[in-house]
Amino acid sequence: MTRPLAVGVAGLGTVGAGLVRLLRDNADCIAARAGRPITVVAVSARDRARDRGVPVSGLHWYDDPVGLAADPNVEVVVEAMGGSDGPALALVQAALAARRPVVTANKALLAVHGAALAVLADRHGTTLAFEAAVAGGIPAIKCLREGLAANRVTRVAGILNGTCNYILTSMRERGREFADVLGEAQKLGYAEADPSFDVDGIDAAHKLAILAALAFGRPVDFGALHVEGIRRVSALDFAYAEELGYRIKLLGLARQTEAGVEARVHPCMVPRDHPIARVDGVFNAVLAEGDFAGPVMLQGRGAGAGPTASAVAADLIDLARGRATPVFGVASATLAPAPAASMQAHRGAYYLRLMVVDRPGVIADVSAILRDHAISLEGLLQRGRAPGEAVPVVLTTHDCTEAAMLAAIGAIGALDAVVEPPMLIRIETLH
Amino acid sequence: MTRPLAVGVAGLGTVGAGLVRLLRDNADCIAARAGRPITVVAVSARDRARDRGVPVSGLHWYDDPVGLAADPNVEVVVEAMGGSDGPALALVQAALAARRPVVTANKALLAVHGAALAVLADRHGTTLAFEAAVAGGIPAIKCLREGLAANRVTRVAGILNGTCNYILTSMRERGREFADVLGEAQKLGYAEADPSFDVDGIDAAHKLAILAALAFGRPVDFGALHVEGIRRVSALDFAYAEELGYRIKLLGLARQTEAGVEARVHPCMVPRDHPIARVDGVFNAVLAEGDFAGPVMLQGRGAGAGPTASAVAADLIDLARGRATPVFGVASATLAPAPAASMQAHRGAYYLRLMVVDRPGVIADVSAILRDHAISLEGLLQRGRAPGEAVPVVLTTHDCTEAAMLAAIGAIGALDAVVEPPMLIRIETLH
Repeated sequence: MTRPLAVGVAGLGTVGAGLVRLLRDNADCIAARAGRPITVVAVSARDRARDRGVPVSGLHWYDDPVGLAADPNVEVVVEAMGGSDGPALALVQAALAARRPVVTANKALLAVHGAALAVLADRHGTTLAFEAAVAGGIPAIKCLREGLAANRVTRVAGILNGTCNYILTSMRERGREFADVLGEAQKLGYAEADPSFDVDGIDAAHKLAILAALAFGRPVDFGALHVEGIRRVSALDFAYAEELGYRIKLLGLARQTEAGVEARVHPCMVPRDHPIARVDGVFNAVLAEGDFAGPVMLQGRGAGAGPTASAVAADLIDLARGRATPVFGVASATLAPAPAASMQAHRGAYYLRLMVVDRPGVIADVSAILRDHAISLEGLLQRGRAPGEAVPVVLTTHDCTEAAMLAAIGAIGALDAVVEPPMLIRIETLH
Repeated sequence: MTRPLAVGVAGLGTVGAGLVRLLRDNADCIAARAGRPITVVAVSARDRARDRGVPVSGLHWYDDPVGLAADPNVEVVVEAMGGSDGPALALVQAALAARRPVVTANKALLAVHGAALAVLADRHGTTLAFEAAVAGGIPAIKCLREGLAANRVTRVAGILNGTCNYILTSMRERGREFADVLGEAQKLGYAEADPSFDVDGIDAAHKLAILAALAFGRPVDFGALHVEGIRRVSALDFAYAEELGYRIKLLGLARQTEAGVEARVHPCMVPRDHPIARVDGVFNAVLAEGDFAGPVMLQGRGAGAGPTASAVAADLIDLARGRATPVFGVASATLAPAPAASMQAHRGAYYLRLMVVDRPGVIADVSAILRDHAISLEGLLQRGRAPGEAVPVVLTTHDCTEAAMLAAIGAIGALDAVVEPPMLIRIETLH
């Protein structure tokens, strides 16, 4: 057995402590698969005294994580602190500049600085691995970057945030409203006290930005994404989705269009029989379509100490074996900054729920507006009757442009009889 | 750009011709991801004159595939001929002995000779890659061998044969019998004229043997598998499965038990809500459970020119990048020949369908036999009545041993009132 791979771990929260535990518990099979032991030799965390349930005595301790990058005994740096800037960024930059490969679970860092960090890694002849940054324990990065490497990828789509998927699943199963379920998820520890990072789609967007860079060979471009969260989805929408044969999921979607790469995160109606519609609770899924392989879908646990540690350790095993890959699968110099397609140019089908005063002529007015914007109606549902009061009306459309739809709902929302801003959910057949 | 990776392809059937087409059509993105072009320089096939829809002029042609192994211009040999022995084996042995890495899609070869070939590859310091041998375009091998490398794998399960899954799906959807659907599948080209390799479970067993070797770090041991096909599953069983909340799938299953590794291929009743139950038609799926990652499931196209070529090319890209992995993920010398658990020792729940003469006392007799074998009944369904004629009776049991169940159905089958051999389908909750 050759000498161990010496690892420095920055951050001993859920991810870092989980990794230390995994490397200890599965040391024998990891050594066999890596061809040599993988050993943590140094750590950095804020509070040295805190009990993390894993032994850190005997390891070199750095109060400043950047110290790990300069430690001559550390061969690989694991960044498990989180945050797109600050100490995490400083450490990764210092380690790459010191020609140390870095493994990170930090999607925010990659979404914001991934393009520059890939250039930095290439310049110093080292690499930055990030299997744990997307979809936790699911080897989604490896599958896309290596498993489908011979394909032109036509689309990636995913359920990339377990908190949102848990909330949407609970809303559907129990007919409850967003705010109720969120409150409960917070009590159970499935959602943060400040949930906006998850429920407003930002976390999913970070991950989608990374997947799109890999899939389409372009620098990570987080700013180009269209991002909407799940706060406005209501129990009513779930009831209509059921009736129409759909499930509501927060999807990240990226595809190559004639206008460039379209990348967006928003609630979607997906056909109930599509495999991604069946991925419930905290589970994540990634769907990638290759021109030769066809559609490949992966599902599993997208978060948590065990799954995340599994992904970080897989990257360490690759490094221990000498299996090296450029950060985004190709040399950073060949990443082509393809134009991003604007959301206005998006074409697709739409679900539209209006709350209207139940009186004659409203549907005629709405239909006329859609016609005037060249939007073709696919279906209309108006179930309840309550003369003079507000009732829901649901419309589904054939494919039209987002620009036309936004103009139409502007006009519809301005009608006297429409008493709430229209609720719009895009229909994604994923065909 | 460094010099191309020079490939020799033996066999220009579906897989070989598909690979030549893929390497041509996606040459630009493959070169970017491989770090250099991948070029076919030599081929071998039976009939030089046949039009395969891909250009082979200008390539060095070998009538004897073993010639590829000795060609100094060939850096990697692709074996795409098929067959567990004969020319395929001779070529792979010769290439490995000549220190040439080999890429193959040949599951039969690996199932029968994989253990010896891994030793041969290690001895000569080269490797044998086989992503295409299991589950076609799904990167199942890479996920298991690298993506989950930090985990102790507790179970692998898969829908590994598209022909069987297509037949079972059609039987369920249309309420038809096996023989009808098989005949139709043969006409459509989804099943071979001699279907036994597929419908008797042999092809799925080849793939399971490979997955079990990877998952549990032991030499491939095809002979230790318990294998049953789908010929005896009837339309009646699908009707009862629906009523009981199950789907019927031909699964390959391997798990670590106290008695050793249990590996088996047979029709299963799986809960309708389990994701694997929803994988229909010609699609394949692989489920792997890691002790840290939890369950990870992959699904996609398991066969066909495009998906198979995608998998072969992924292996070539790994080789072009210098990403090397031992054949079964660990050095062949460390593969431990763990004992195989006997099927007699298997414990699980069972679905039992009997055709019995509809007269008083039969159920009492059957129940007494089960009790005498310490088998606990979970449910009983007897829907139709036809006094004096044969009617189906369905029993489901709690967990018991296969040995007890086989003894019990021997006794049950011997009852006068039981007019057909009992039909037994194992229930797999996959929990």
